[in-house]
Amino acid sequence: MYQLVLVRHGESEWNKSNLFTGWTDVDLSEKGVMEAKEAGQLLKRENFEFDAGFTSYLKRAIKTLDYILDEMNLLWIPVRKSWELNERHYGALQGLSKETTARQYGEEQVMRWRRSYDVLPPALTAGDERNPRNDIKYRDVPEQFLPLTESLKETGIRVEDYWEKEIVPQIKAGKKVIIAAHGNSLRALIKYLENISNEAIVDVNIPTGTPLVYTLDEHLKPVEKHYLGSEGRTSSKIEKAANPDRILE
Amino acid sequence: MYQLVLVRHGESEWNKSNLFTGWTDVDLSEKGVMEAKEAGQLLKRENFEFDAGFTSYLKRAIKTLDYILDEMNLLWIPVRKSWELNERHYGALQGLSKETTARQYGEEQVMRWRRSYDVLPPALTAGDERNPRNDIKYRDVPEQFLPLTESLKETGIRVEDYWEKEIVPQIKAGKKVIIAAHGNSLRALIKYLENISNEAIVDVNIPTGTPLVYTLDEHLKPVEKHYLGSEGRTSSKIEKAANPDRILE
Repeated sequence: MYQLVLVRHGESEWNKSNLFTGWTDVDLSEKGVMEAKEAGQLLKRENFEFDAGFTSYLKRAIKTLDYILDEMNLLWIPVRKSWELNERHYGALQGLSKETTARQYGEEQVMRWRRSYDVLPPALTAGDERNPRNDIKYRDVPEQFLPLTESLKETGIRVEDYWEKEIVPQIKAGKKVIIAAHGNSLRALIKYLENISNEAIVDVNIPTGTPLVYTLDEHLKPVEKHYLGSEGRTSSKIEKAANPDRILE
Repeated sequence: MYQLVLVRHGESEWNKSNLFTGWTDVDLSEKGVMEAKEAGQLLKRENFEFDAGFTSYLKRAIKTLDYILDEMNLLWIPVRKSWELNERHYGALQGLSKETTARQYGEEQVMRWRRSYDVLPPALTAGDERNPRNDIKYRDVPEQFLPLTESLKETGIRVEDYWEKEIVPQIKAGKKVIIAAHGNSLRALIKYLENISNEAIVDVNIPTGTPLVYTLDEHLKPVEKHYLGSEGRTSSKIEKAANPDRILE
């Protein structure tokens, strides 16, 4: 039996202002910092231990993990940061507000981009300054892997691949792993772990800053999962995230 | 030609209260946080870039590096944390105040421990709760490497070994490296790099939170070094650190 803990980063500045974020590297809001620290305190109180941390290239996830590890006195454990755990790339919608997008494309189209498994938002043009190849972070990533837009399906391909190649060997070596990442990169991982259908996964919502604890069998199939924290807090968080007006990825 | 940047962590809580720290894992003071952020702002203003960070297992150094990288928008670069870059182990003096130590052993003896190259402070007993083998951080370190006390000489042995095995290959591969560590682990590294004598090294003092920039030739021998920041600020910092009443390691 193995233990795995997933945490979605705390609220970011752009969550607050209701903008599509994707790979934009925005910081945690003050509330997001609080959420991260509370997650760490909760994990500490429940006597969790970790041997290795994984996170994305985006500071809202990196800092969430750092705040958690600091609260747990575990800042010294190795942490791997990887673009493969980044949020779903939201293409040309990145930086637009929900209102603008709905006005431009219609509510129905926006919901299709946000709540379907394999519909791609409009892609960035190669020359767009938001193209990841213009960002120093990704200079070592072969260009064919750098997305100009993604559906949840594409996000899933890179997340699954990274999970199998980099994280599974650590877990099988007996390391207790924590992953701090994003609404959609974690959704993709949960889909893969729990073998959730393309149709059902779009209704799975992960609350921010709330540790999701899996017990995995020897084949790394989940046998149990629960969110840490009082039932009340967790349920209310899930409810909030389930309201599409409030979860911009 | 290669570039290397060294930073001694900002002021810690125990620097403030004048206690021997060594491997005790105390946090940065508020002033220490400010120093770290200022170091990051300075490096950013001067257009420094880094591809890899190295630090110790101690949170005052880890956080100093994190604050610097955050200011520089470089939180995503790989960071290696290693016990070999820890501060000099101060043996049974760890946790004692300068005043207590001077009363117990005499001023002269205390200065000998602090300002000689190879005189060991009193060792911890194996059963002491401060013995590193009782700390979860070091559970994967073979016991023969875990010190019960160190002079600068012993600190140097592990620092040099780590430098050659882990850091040099990165630099030779063209990576721009930053190391955030401690007064004595950095002093040991500087001794090795600049080939400073056992006698002279004890008078070399490194100001806190002030980036020390080396240019190294193809054999990694320093051809130039300078502290970043206004002359005034740097000199005054060195002066302060050179006052032995104010630098507890």
